[in-house]
Amino acid sequence: MISPSPATAAESDTRASNPLSRAALVRPELGLVEEQLRQVAKMPFSFLADVLEAIIAAGGKRLRPTVLLLSARFHDYDVEHLVFAATAIELLHTATLVHDDTVDHSLVRRGKPTLNSILSNGATVLTGDYLFAQAASLCTQSGSLRAVRIFADSLVTIMNGELGQVAAGRSLEKARENYYSRIYAKTASLFEASCQIGAIISHAPEADVEALGHYGRQLGMAFQIVDDILDFESTTADLGKPVGNDLRQGTVTLPAMQFIDETNDPVARQMVYDVIAGDITSDEQVTEVIRLIKQSSALDRAHREAQLFSSEAKAALAGLPNNEARQALEQIADFALIRKS
Amino acid sequence: MISPSPATAAESDTRASNPLSRAALVRPELGLVEEQLRQVAKMPFSFLADVLEAIIAAGGKRLRPTVLLLSARFHDYDVEHLVFAATAIELLHTATLVHDDTVDHSLVRRGKPTLNSILSNGATVLTGDYLFAQAASLCTQSGSLRAVRIFADSLVTIMNGELGQVAAGRSLEKARENYYSRIYAKTASLFEASCQIGAIISHAPEADVEALGHYGRQLGMAFQIVDDILDFESTTADLGKPVGNDLRQGTVTLPAMQFIDETNDPVARQMVYDVIAGDITSDEQVTEVIRLIKQSSALDRAHREAQLFSSEAKAALAGLPNNEARQALEQIADFALIRKS
Repeated sequence: MISPSPATAAESDTRASNPLSRAALVRPELGLVEEQLRQVAKMPFSFLADVLEAIIAAGGKRLRPTVLLLSARFHDYDVEHLVFAATAIELLHTATLVHDDTVDHSLVRRGKPTLNSILSNGATVLTGDYLFAQAASLCTQSGSLRAVRIFADSLVTIMNGELGQVAAGRSLEKARENYYSRIYAKTASLFEASCQIGAIISHAPEADVEALGHYGRQLGMAFQIVDDILDFESTTADLGKPVGNDLRQGTVTLPAMQFIDETNDPVARQMVYDVIAGDITSDEQVTEVIRLIKQSSALDRAHREAQLFSSEAKAALAGLPNNEARQALEQIADFALIRKS
Repeated sequence: MISPSPATAAESDTRASNPLSRAALVRPELGLVEEQLRQVAKMPFSFLADVLEAIIAAGGKRLRPTVLLLSARFHDYDVEHLVFAATAIELLHTATLVHDDTVDHSLVRRGKPTLNSILSNGATVLTGDYLFAQAASLCTQSGSLRAVRIFADSLVTIMNGELGQVAAGRSLEKARENYYSRIYAKTASLFEASCQIGAIISHAPEADVEALGHYGRQLGMAFQIVDDILDFESTTADLGKPVGNDLRQGTVTLPAMQFIDETNDPVARQMVYDVIAGDITSDEQVTEVIRLIKQSSALDRAHREAQLFSSEAKAALAGLPNNEARQALEQIADFALIRKS
């Protein structure tokens, strides 16, 4: 794949594994977010406290709280309000993952057992609900009704997207149109909300709220496209799920669409159709289809689209003061392209 | 059972089947709530729109929106704000029922098929999440951050209660203490929140917010105790689930506790223990245990407790002007005791 960054492979691995180097500016606030997350995990029920703590601790890179905290750095804010909102956003994200695992019966995520594989389905549903509830409650402590409204509306968008995916099933109809609205709903809307909320809590003027929201939206689009590329490119160990999982589940992502559009091999194209439709399920044949897609230029083309979104994200910041926060947000837009997990 | 009302059986049946006669005062607002509920059900996905509409239409007596609307009638309010909040409360309640059905695998509720019996588990979880999201979003349109906070905190309480029930399992340890905190979490907290929110949106002074919240809490306790009595007393047709369902699931409710406390028959007491522990599961033996409890004075004693809560609910209103709204709230506290479903 074409690397958009001048960093060497070794450097880029280090950076990818430690994205928070970009977030040094907001490290104290991120520490407070971690502290609040740990408080939420401290359930009085021992059967849950440990798994919940593990799930929250395993929670990835805290990118959403990071962009929220950075988005507030152009104006003045009450740090307590901000930290409540950042924690709420991360918990909302965690809650959607917990429920996602019950929807697609995943037993591992990020290489770790899912709650779903440890608890009954019912207990997993309730735990996700508990996290939603805590997220909503913390968000109200941001002191901003508008922030809570954006938060809730983003959840409506996410759920509409998920139900839309269930409704679409294994289908290629309007695949490209559906793809962009699906990744907006699934990922970009919460990044957008995070940045808007950070801006709103810092009393940013409307133009800045809009600019930062636009940044978050385009960042989220880039982020999800890279996710969809990694689903083909990464290893089962890194993904914590089988390579090509989307395709196996009949979810049509950008790499598969690029391949269908560009291939000259009608047999290969038909094989992709058949995997998506669920007519090909043997691991050997699916692996062959994944190999064909990886060998083609589909992943590079998809990556170039992610680069466009990342560039637009950075361009959205042009009207803001060129301070450390803006530089950190720009670096995160670069990081979204080079991350390996 | 002792009837707490001087109404004849026929009258009380009519009243029980038409509880909204008590809510004539807020009928116009309830109509707006119904309209908003229908809007939420109008999903763009045909597979969902019909079932969602049916679930929302089947939604019981709208008691929570009714007490919310009545609680605002002591001061001045913006009707739009109030209707958003009332719709949000009803949707939150509906969402918890949808998820409950996935937790206990119910296939019928209120005598109708559950979403769970029509859709996949995953789609049911997402639909519940969608309703939560819409509820939260509508609640933010109440214009009151404090109302949203009470709404969210009530959801935290509900989920803590549900997880506590999962954690407790089939156990009689601290049964009475656990019972009261469980029915508060499960039912009374949302009635309390409804009344507080109605009061807050009408800019009621703090003393009135507290009085109406207290009314809601005690009403909810009475309501749930009667629910737990009906689980023994009603018919499978009326309940839409097997009689004695709580006992079968190992959930210890007030009637079972009263029976254990008062019976002189050690064999009967042991049978109740064994059903709760899951050691007796044959339908014949469970039916015999239910018969023993119904024959005893346990249901009457439980009903007397519900009456106490209902009386306390009415007493909580003593400091408010004796207007039509207060009379309607008092009637609802009476209705909670005589309802048959």
